Amino acid sequence: MVENRNKAMSFERLFKPKNVLIFEAQTKISFFIEGFLRQEYDLKNLYLVSSKEDELSGIKCYRSIDNVPIDTIDLLILSVRRDILVQSITDILSKKKIRFVHIFTAGTGEFDDEGIKIERKIKEILKNNPGTRSIGPNCMGLYCPYGKIAYYPSFPIESGNIALIFQSGDLHSKMVKFGSRRYNLRFSKCVSIGNCIDIQISELLQYFNNDIETNIVCVYFEGLPVLYKKEGKRLLNVLKSMDKPVLFMRGGRTERGQKAVLTHTGALATKRIIWDSIFNQTPIIDVPPSLDELIDYTYIFSKHIQRFKRLKRIVKYPSNKNVLVILWSGGFGILATDVLTELGLNVPLFEGKKLEKLKQIYPIKIGSLSNPLDMPWIISNKVYLEVSKAAIDDGIDFVMLVTDAWRDLEDTRFKSYYSNLLGIKSHVESIDKIFVIILPDYPSESRKNFHAKLTKDGFFVYPSIERAAKSFLKLYEYGKKREVIIWLEK
Amino acid sequence: MVENRNKAMSFERLFKPKNVLIFEAQTKISFFIEGFLRQEYDLKNLYLVSSKEDELSGIKCYRSIDNVPIDTIDLLILSVRRDILVQSITDILSKKKIRFVHIFTAGTGEFDDEGIKIERKIKEILKNNPGTRSIGPNCMGLYCPYGKIAYYPSFPIESGNIALIFQSGDLHSKMVKFGSRRYNLRFSKCVSIGNCIDIQISELLQYFNNDIETNIVCVYFEGLPVLYKKEGKRLLNVLKSMDKPVLFMRGGRTERGQKAVLTHTGALATKRIIWDSIFNQTPIIDVPPSLDELIDYTYIFSKHIQRFKRLKRIVKYPSNKNVLVILWSGGFGILATDVLTELGLNVPLFEGKKLEKLKQIYPIKIGSLSNPLDMPWIISNKVYLEVSKAAIDDGIDFVMLVTDAWRDLEDTRFKSYYSNLLGIKSHVESIDKIFVIILPDYPSESRKNFHAKLTKDGFFVYPSIERAAKSFLKLYEYGKKREVIIWLEK
Repeated sequence: MVENRNKAMSFERLFKPKNVLIFEAQTKISFFIEGFLRQEYDLKNLYLVSSKEDELSGIKCYRSIDNVPIDTIDLLILSVRRDILVQSITDILSKKKIRFVHIFTAGTGEFDDEGIKIERKIKEILKNNPGTRSIGPNCMGLYCPYGKIAYYPSFPIESGNIALIFQSGDLHSKMVKFGSRRYNLRFSKCVSIGNCIDIQISELLQYFNNDIETNIVCVYFEGLPVLYKKEGKRLLNVLKSMDKPVLFMRGGRTERGQKAVLTHTGALATKRIIWDSIFNQTPIIDVPPSLDELIDYTYIFSKHIQRFKRLKRIVKYPSNKNVLVILWSGGFGILATDVLTELGLNVPLFEGKKLEKLKQIYPIKIGSLSNPLDMPWIISNKVYLEVSKAAIDDGIDFVMLVTDAWRDLEDTRFKSYYSNLLGIKSHVESIDKIFVIILPDYPSESRKNFHAKLTKDGFFVYPSIERAAKSFLKLYEYGKKREVIIWLEK
Repeated sequence: MVENRNKAMSFERLFKPKNVLIFEAQTKISFFIEGFLRQEYDLKNLYLVSSKEDELSGIKCYRSIDNVPIDTIDLLILSVRRDILVQSITDILSKKKIRFVHIFTAGTGEFDDEGIKIERKIKEILKNNPGTRSIGPNCMGLYCPYGKIAYYPSFPIESGNIALIFQSGDLHSKMVKFGSRRYNLRFSKCVSIGNCIDIQISELLQYFNNDIETNIVCVYFEGLPVLYKKEGKRLLNVLKSMDKPVLFMRGGRTERGQKAVLTHTGALATKRIIWDSIFNQTPIIDVPPSLDELIDYTYIFSKHIQRFKRLKRIVKYPSNKNVLVILWSGGFGILATDVLTELGLNVPLFEGKKLEKLKQIYPIKIGSLSNPLDMPWIISNKVYLEVSKAAIDDGIDFVMLVTDAWRDLEDTRFKSYYSNLLGIKSHVESIDKIFVIILPDYPSESRKNFHAKLTKDGFFVYPSIERAAKSFLKLYEYGKKREVIIWLEK
């Protein structure tokens, strides 16, 4: 039974292949080769087979698989027309021992009946070659900076703690591209898995759950594979057992969207009501159909967990949703209060002893000693830090500080202000709360430079109060889910 | 009666003052002077009074109001401490004829009882000087590139068709700054009005309704003024009578937000249920508490109306909400379908003759001749334009084309693609539908250059499908409201 092959297994060599063979290599897919070059993959372990080219990107091409001088290959990237796909894979498997095949070829199960037939044949071939596992077809494949592999040269070479499992190559690429450029997201092991005729999402999730390089997993899911009836149940069980946050974005949430899924991966879309129940039973986080939101949420999870891992501490999640906003603008503060309240956060007012203490520290002349804390003109004074620290106690879970870009980062007033920001940050972190800077987005050199400085110094920087608040709420939601699951397991 | 002064009047000289006096001019408020310099206001008509400085930004300062050599002043910018505010205004009005006063001074009615007293006194003074009208106190004032005035040097010098009336100076500044940089928004007449002790929102709306330089008005509203009981009714009547779109953003939508309003402008916040009823009765558009959304919506209204005005035609608004998405990505297309469906748009499938026609034009091998129209690999071919044109007929109201940045804008393939984009644009416009390019946002030189090119050529460019769709829906909503009102008036 093919189903039986799906035991929990190591995908170490899939993400960190000791050697790679591209068949057939051609100019059209040179991005694969450029990706390996950029990641500084050891080129003596990269083998290209091409019936036409003698070399590509400076790398020698072998005329046929027979000329390739090694017998065992960790990763085969198979890029041939669909009408010779079955023949190619049969031929290669008869000549070489292949651990993993990435079938890049598209136009199979998602396209027509002929394509479905091809997939069935490949499934049969793999069944007879239990040592070979496969991702795809119809997928972009792998990105693992730890393993020095990437299918695009534009992907970062630095490693991170985010794993991706995506049923869309384009969304997968965009997640890496936009995420790395917007928020400096960095990834551990990422895979665009396409039509899933062999390796399933459940298997990869299980693997990532035990992978020390991964702290968080993002999934883009379109549906269950036609050829693996048991994947639904297996997936549910794995989702239940996940010890790491899983941000789960489904394509085909609406009936109209499900029609669109059919022409994409040909997967069996699942009904909303089923998913609502799955989200209730498992610690996974439901993400709306927006790549931007997925990237926003991933940012806070990735950086939040990273901070605790660096301190070698167990990750703490917010247990309440009381927010303090610090800014310099009455109007913005009112909008913030409205939007946060509508999102379900609490914006507690200062009262009693706390308010007295704040008034003692800063007998205010302008602005307001309230929440939002509106303190114009004093942002560069020490009292700004003192008031902020007194305002941020255990009754506050989340602090947002709204700022605009500064033109001159060498200015004395800026330096005092910035030192206040660093002071607030370390105070917030010392009591395990979440601190986010809100720096609205617009094209500007000053903004770019200020943003880079903040990011370098470890601030979490969001472009809007709403996006930061929604991201915080996901962190809070995950914390609550974990509490419930820990309680149920007692 | 002071109320009687509020007749419909011309604010021409407020926005286009023939001369301006700043009292007192000092380094702390040099942004005002820099604003005038940047807008190339005729400096011989800018008078500064300062008890301390001899000159500021190269402009001579008069020692006292007595030395100012003119008798009639269109605009007085009054910036004095609150404790000498009443005395200063009394003194100046006894010596000069002043058409408009912008009272910059803060810390009045919004701050304490003493401040409320000051406001009552000023109201009394203005009552006795019917030739003098005033904005403020507690406001940033005016921006009108037609009149060459601006309170910040960073505001664009080019004029546009957007008027602003904001009860928050900071939000007003941010609207201009972010709007101009994100979307090249350009403004006609903008005013941060503060505590509204004289000129009211209703008066300005009425004025803008007849102002040929203004096509759309954005309002940021916190509440009705304490000193003008009749403004509520008047505002409702003016809102009912508006012939131009009014994008209306309220601060203090939530009860918690209303508490925040009290410390800001001290205005009387109004209840949600009342506003729901006002939005039902009037053609104005309710904007959620998000400056980003207000800017997004303003963009589509401003550019859409501008296009019709240039053609000297009556503006047509979308009468249905059928959307076509053109892209190169299955996954993105599915998310788009979901998000559009959830927002309440229709994503109609191609059927019958239309589908036959599309298949004839492009017997597809890859991608899908569906909606979203996913046509990879052929974006630079002529057939791409032909398929798109055939897909965009009267059954479609709104077309979104998702693209990514191109590195080389001189590349031959890019040029063919770009010519396709221009072809689609002119086809869509020829049948009075709306066409928007979706170019996701991330820091990148290529993106910046491509964005600039698209904008220069008159494309509407949004950073996400969701934001574009929500903006389109506001245009649609406005069209429906107009239809109802035209029908009611028959």
